[in-house]
Amino acid sequence: MDASNCFADVKLDPCSRKPLYRQIADMVIQKILHHVLPPGAKLPPERELADIFDVSRTTAINAYRCLEQEGWIKTRVGSGTYVERHAVANSGATSDIPWTELFAAAPPSAMSTILRDLVSARMDRDNISLAAGMADPATFPIESMKSLMEQHMDQMERSDFGHIPTEGYEPLRHSLVKHLAEKGIKATADQVMTFAGSQNGLYLLARVMLEPGDYVVVEAPTFIGAIQVFQGAGARILTLPVGEVMSLPLLEDYLIRYRPKFLYINPTFHNPTGRVMTEQERVDLLELAARYRLVIVEDDAYGELHFGEKPPLSMKARDGYGGVIYLNTFSKILFPGLRMGYVAAAPTLISRLALEKQYIDLHTSNVSQWLLHLYLESDELPSHLVKVRKEYKHRRDVMAKALRRYAGEQLTFHVPDGGFYLWCQIEGDVHSRDLLHEAIKSGVSFVPGGVFYTTPVGEKEFRLCFTTHPEEVLQEGARRLGDTLRRMASGKRSSLHSFSVHPII
Amino acid sequence: MDASNCFADVKLDPCSRKPLYRQIADMVIQKILHHVLPPGAKLPPERELADIFDVSRTTAINAYRCLEQEGWIKTRVGSGTYVERHAVANSGATSDIPWTELFAAAPPSAMSTILRDLVSARMDRDNISLAAGMADPATFPIESMKSLMEQHMDQMERSDFGHIPTEGYEPLRHSLVKHLAEKGIKATADQVMTFAGSQNGLYLLARVMLEPGDYVVVEAPTFIGAIQVFQGAGARILTLPVGEVMSLPLLEDYLIRYRPKFLYINPTFHNPTGRVMTEQERVDLLELAARYRLVIVEDDAYGELHFGEKPPLSMKARDGYGGVIYLNTFSKILFPGLRMGYVAAAPTLISRLALEKQYIDLHTSNVSQWLLHLYLESDELPSHLVKVRKEYKHRRDVMAKALRRYAGEQLTFHVPDGGFYLWCQIEGDVHSRDLLHEAIKSGVSFVPGGVFYTTPVGEKEFRLCFTTHPEEVLQEGARRLGDTLRRMASGKRSSLHSFSVHPII
Repeated sequence: MDASNCFADVKLDPCSRKPLYRQIADMVIQKILHHVLPPGAKLPPERELADIFDVSRTTAINAYRCLEQEGWIKTRVGSGTYVERHAVANSGATSDIPWTELFAAAPPSAMSTILRDLVSARMDRDNISLAAGMADPATFPIESMKSLMEQHMDQMERSDFGHIPTEGYEPLRHSLVKHLAEKGIKATADQVMTFAGSQNGLYLLARVMLEPGDYVVVEAPTFIGAIQVFQGAGARILTLPVGEVMSLPLLEDYLIRYRPKFLYINPTFHNPTGRVMTEQERVDLLELAARYRLVIVEDDAYGELHFGEKPPLSMKARDGYGGVIYLNTFSKILFPGLRMGYVAAAPTLISRLALEKQYIDLHTSNVSQWLLHLYLESDELPSHLVKVRKEYKHRRDVMAKALRRYAGEQLTFHVPDGGFYLWCQIEGDVHSRDLLHEAIKSGVSFVPGGVFYTTPVGEKEFRLCFTTHPEEVLQEGARRLGDTLRRMASGKRSSLHSFSVHPII
Repeated sequence: MDASNCFADVKLDPCSRKPLYRQIADMVIQKILHHVLPPGAKLPPERELADIFDVSRTTAINAYRCLEQEGWIKTRVGSGTYVERHAVANSGATSDIPWTELFAAAPPSAMSTILRDLVSARMDRDNISLAAGMADPATFPIESMKSLMEQHMDQMERSDFGHIPTEGYEPLRHSLVKHLAEKGIKATADQVMTFAGSQNGLYLLARVMLEPGDYVVVEAPTFIGAIQVFQGAGARILTLPVGEVMSLPLLEDYLIRYRPKFLYINPTFHNPTGRVMTEQERVDLLELAARYRLVIVEDDAYGELHFGEKPPLSMKARDGYGGVIYLNTFSKILFPGLRMGYVAAAPTLISRLALEKQYIDLHTSNVSQWLLHLYLESDELPSHLVKVRKEYKHRRDVMAKALRRYAGEQLTFHVPDGGFYLWCQIEGDVHSRDLLHEAIKSGVSFVPGGVFYTTPVGEKEFRLCFTTHPEEVLQEGARRLGDTLRRMASGKRSSLHSFSVHPII
């Protein structure tokens, strides 16, 4: 067949982030993989390819150059361009190995990909994502990092780019000791360990502390990533409802009845509700924990992001019985791509975490650890925090005002004193998953409440992140959401009901 | 008591890498933790502290400044310096929680920390470590990376520092497609996934593919990190002796008898033996694998480091049945602190690996991925490889010559055509663990053969890495090793026999 004809049915997408030459190259690969272009087939000359796709000759040349570099085609001077003889046999794409049958039992949760999808969802003009818990890229202190790197690169010892201890880059552990001291937490360097994000720390804690059938207590609702990791370790999850105050009698019942391995909490600007445990609650909880020798995992990801008064001291700063494990991340206050988290805990626990981490990745990226060390030593963090607190406070207010304006009758929410989120309750007969389904059609998305629970509740709740976008986008998001809610309340909704949360958010 | 007296028994170490002010600060912390300096105790004035330790006043001031920043002490102007009231209660160091009893069952191997210790062992004048499998820091292309960063920093999209897909930074996946094509491996970007080092990939493969009781086939000897990860997943390990040729009849027996989940091999410059599978062996193994639908995990960490002729094409480049998983790392050819590894495999497998990886760390450091992408696109890798191949070839020859000179009668070894290692056999009645014990006293270390096996063999073998040090150091290492061997052969050895490998290497 004439190879030119096989492109009759395909079209380029001028709006895609993918350059045109790459789109053409990928189409050729698809034709090769599906044997439409068999090994040895002659491809159209570059000029003809340019005509077929209505692109410049340079674009056509670039497409062939990519394909040749990747081994799919071969240009013979004076003869033409051909599909490589072994392109398909070697590609692995025509695999007959039944991979899925070879895998270990899959993670238990039906929502197992939600976290990944939430964080990797691309934003564009047409979809305003209020779903991912992410800082605005405009706030990332990239310029500071760049100038710190340029200033200090020559002072690095070359061996610092080699293998370093699993527990963390030593100078960074010392910077973290000082950083912790500023929050009232006393620790020595051997009580501090670094991770590739706090998710890495949570995973390791679960690996080290949990065996199938062990009990763990979490708040309900709570951070999705924690639920996934604890369930993945085979733990049985007990829940403490997040209300006006944490129910210590219920916790004590759990302690007596189940002897849980630990309690996982988010005491300051709780994800997703934004709640802050009061001074008195913290003291009471610590007293109970000390009495029952309960280990507490304190996740303080949002603690620095207060918009008014400083919140009460962390549980770890008050830990008199040695049972609090303090977990934190720089993803929310700096940027997630740094992948830097850390723990402050007993040295015995850190040794065991390190033993486990060496199997997983030997140690966290030296480059990330070195950058964070430079940043912490530069003293730029305090002014950066002042700046983002002010900006996020403003965005919270903008978001709250816009929601009251556009959806005041359909939604209630509490305005949090810090953090990233508004936790909304839907008034009336609309479920948050159905709302999401309709909202996406209107170009706005969020996280439905159900995913923050281990039991099938939360269908009237959802989480909005107010930090990712500038003012105008938040207002437009709230408007779209309000429109959707009003349309649904008046009974005009789509007939599609079989909705899966996975591929959309 | 007078706080000054409590330092009578302590001394500073002028040779330590730790600065003097830090040594003083750490001693004070120890005294606080052990209640020698109780909360509220008054510390000596700076001038007196300087006298006690015979250091400058600046050093004393710096020690106190650290301690204050870390929250251990408090200086009251006009009054003096005091131990903080809550320093100990908050430190967690006096923990009564029985941590070790709370942990999940420990990893099975008695050598569970060896990999970590090997890679994090510091080198100094007194100890020549030929143990860690590491490139010489002098070869790390840090200057290139620095200049690439400076040139391209401004072209990064800010969102590239946010969350990115778990499967890898998209531009890097495309760079890797081209990099693979240069090695004759055809893959599309969705058949490539990045990891935090190849250890991270091995761990994920074990998590995804292995359930307790599953069988896995490895070579004996083989890479320690693979043994640890497979055993950690509860797999039962079958071994193929590394000899002149891989025993396909034995492998076929295993395939029939145990239906192993996969075969893990290191076909090119095998760690630790340096062996290269011939063209014919590869073809025969693939034929057998295709017939039995055997999955092969090909670890190609050393494949690029050939000192003469190019080695035969990888298994993956010849994979006609789609069962080969190709794993590689940039730790050996660039630098380990980058923590960058990758896999080329079927998209189904990659989706599942990504699902598992999101629990572990969401995704690998953007900074590391971006740096590697810049480096691969810069076309500097080929000339870097030419340079390190030449240098390592020279070091191999230096090492081989020095070993023949200093230990020619006590050792035999095969000179490898690439990679990092010399695999030595001891002639006569000396075991490699005993040798290590004695060699460390003479200031040289290596990896005893036993750790590369799952069964108690290899006691006459050991591995030397010839890439980490310059010529003169390799010669001195060989001399010390030869002296130790001769001394032991003549019966003069230490009386200490209870030797544990862990804390020393």
